[in-house]
Amino acid sequence: MSRTVYVNGEYLPEEQAKVSVFDRGFLFADGVYEVTSVLGGKLIDFDGHAKRLQRSLDELEMKNPVTKDELLGVHRELVERNGIDEGLVYLQITRGAADRDFAYPDGAEPTIVLFTQSKPGLAESPKAKTGMKVISIEDQRWGRRDIKTVQLLYPSMGKMMAKAAGADDAWMVQDGQVTEGTSNNAYIVKGNTIVTRQLSNDILHGITRAAVLRFAAEAQMQVEERPFTIDEAMGADEAFITSASTFVMPVVEIDGAAIGTGTPGPVAARLREIYLEESRKAAI
Amino acid sequence: MSRTVYVNGEYLPEEQAKVSVFDRGFLFADGVYEVTSVLGGKLIDFDGHAKRLQRSLDELEMKNPVTKDELLGVHRELVERNGIDEGLVYLQITRGAADRDFAYPDGAEPTIVLFTQSKPGLAESPKAKTGMKVISIEDQRWGRRDIKTVQLLYPSMGKMMAKAAGADDAWMVQDGQVTEGTSNNAYIVKGNTIVTRQLSNDILHGITRAAVLRFAAEAQMQVEERPFTIDEAMGADEAFITSASTFVMPVVEIDGAAIGTGTPGPVAARLREIYLEESRKAAI
Repeated sequence: MSRTVYVNGEYLPEEQAKVSVFDRGFLFADGVYEVTSVLGGKLIDFDGHAKRLQRSLDELEMKNPVTKDELLGVHRELVERNGIDEGLVYLQITRGAADRDFAYPDGAEPTIVLFTQSKPGLAESPKAKTGMKVISIEDQRWGRRDIKTVQLLYPSMGKMMAKAAGADDAWMVQDGQVTEGTSNNAYIVKGNTIVTRQLSNDILHGITRAAVLRFAAEAQMQVEERPFTIDEAMGADEAFITSASTFVMPVVEIDGAAIGTGTPGPVAARLREIYLEESRKAAI
Repeated sequence: MSRTVYVNGEYLPEEQAKVSVFDRGFLFADGVYEVTSVLGGKLIDFDGHAKRLQRSLDELEMKNPVTKDELLGVHRELVERNGIDEGLVYLQITRGAADRDFAYPDGAEPTIVLFTQSKPGLAESPKAKTGMKVISIEDQRWGRRDIKTVQLLYPSMGKMMAKAAGADDAWMVQDGQVTEGTSNNAYIVKGNTIVTRQLSNDILHGITRAAVLRFAAEAQMQVEERPFTIDEAMGADEAFITSASTFVMPVVEIDGAAIGTGTPGPVAARLREIYLEESRKAAI
C-alpha cells in the first residue's frame, strides 16, 4: 500500500510526492528537518521538536511556512491516514525552489514535506536488550551541528563505516573528545554519574537528550555535562545513546572493547523505562 | 520560455522537472555535482569535469548512471535545446530515492539531473574590469571539500555574509590560512610569483585551477602551492580567484583593505586572457 505524503499543502500518494529539481534542499542542502516518534498512535515530544525546528529556521534566516498548530494537524493527519501505531513522522523544510545561485533567493516560498515510517516494535526493540556496538571515527562534519540541517552525508558515511566494521553505529571524535553518534547523543556512566558532552555548536541539541537528563536528575542521578574521550568510555561502567527514534539505547562495545560487563547496564535500562513511561503519558 | 531540463533520461519542461521527496540528494545531501561553462555554444573543459565527477562518485561509492559519451550528448542536447551561447550546464547525480535510512540503500538507482543557465556576457564580465571585493570568514565546512558534494549550505551562508558586508564573496580561513572562496579557488600574486593553496581534502580540486596553473607555468610565471594568510594577501600585489563560471577574476579588496593598487592587476588580466583564449580553442 502506498503511503500518503504531505508536500506543500497537499496529501499525495508517495509515488507522486516530488519536489522541483531547483529546490534548494536538493541543490544546496539548504533545509532543516525533525523526526518525531509515534507510540500508540501519539506524538512524542512534539513541542520540543516544533521549538527546535523554529530555532533551526531562525539560525538560517529561513521562513516557517506553517504555524505550530498547523504542523501538529499535519502530523496527526499523516499518522491517521497511514495507520501508524509505532513509528516516525519525518518533517523537512527547505528554502524553496529558485534558479540556482549560492545567494538566498528573494521571494522563494519554503518547501515543506512530511512523511511517516511505520516501525512496529519501536518501543520493544530487541537492540535495547542486547545493546549496540559502536566504532569511533573522526568527526568531519561542518561546524554548526546545532542546526539540524540535511547535510547528512558524513553521518551516512559513518553509518556505512560502522556497518563495514560489523558495528551498529559510529561515535564521532573531534580533538580527541567524543562529540556524538551519527544521529544520536552519546553518554557514558561511571558509578552514579552520567557524562555527556555539553551543548554547543559541536553537537545536536537533542530533544530526547533534554528529557533524559531531566529524568536522570529527578531520579537522583548525577549528570556531568562535559566532553569525554574514547579511552574514558572504554573504562566506563556503561554507555548509551539517546535519540528521538531510539529513545535510550545501551552501547556495550566500542572499537571492539566491551564496556563494563559487555551487556546493557542498569542506568541505561532504567532511563529507557522512565523515558518511555513518561513520554507515553505526555504524548499527544 | 521554459527551459528544458534533463531528469533520469527524460527531457522535460522545467516546471515538470522533479525528483522524489525520498531522493537522498534531498534528504541527506547525498549527491555530487559539476558545473561546465559554455562559450560560443561549446563546452569548456568537459573532460576535466567528467573526470572529477567520476572521482567524486568513486569517493562516495556511488554508481555513475551514464557513460562519458552519454553525458557529453546530454550536455550538447541541452545547450542546443535551450539555445545557450554563453552560460552554464549544471549536472547533479545523487544516490537515488529510497525509504529514509542513514545507511546507503541497496538497489537504488542514481538520480541524474542536468539543466542550463544562460549567462550572456559571461566572458566579457564587467566584474573582470572592476575586480571583486571579498571578506574573510571562518571555514566551517566539512572535512572532505575535495569531493564536490551538494553540502553547500555554508558556502551559501558565506555568500550572504559577503553580501551583508557589501562584498562579492568570502574567502574562508582555517587555522589562520585561507582555504578557498565559497565556490572558487583563491590566489595571491607577489612579484612574479602566484601563490595558491596546495591540493588536499581541504579544498576543491578546481578544474579551472589546474588549467590556469598550467598556463601560468607556460607563461614563465612562478607558482607556489602553499597556504597563505589574510595578512599575506593584504600585502600582496594582486589577488584573484578561479572557477568554472568566473574563469579568472581579479580580487581588489579583502576585508575593506585594497590589494596592491586596488584595481585589477596585470597577472590576473593576462591569465584570464590566456584562459579564455585557450579554452575557446579547446571547447567541444
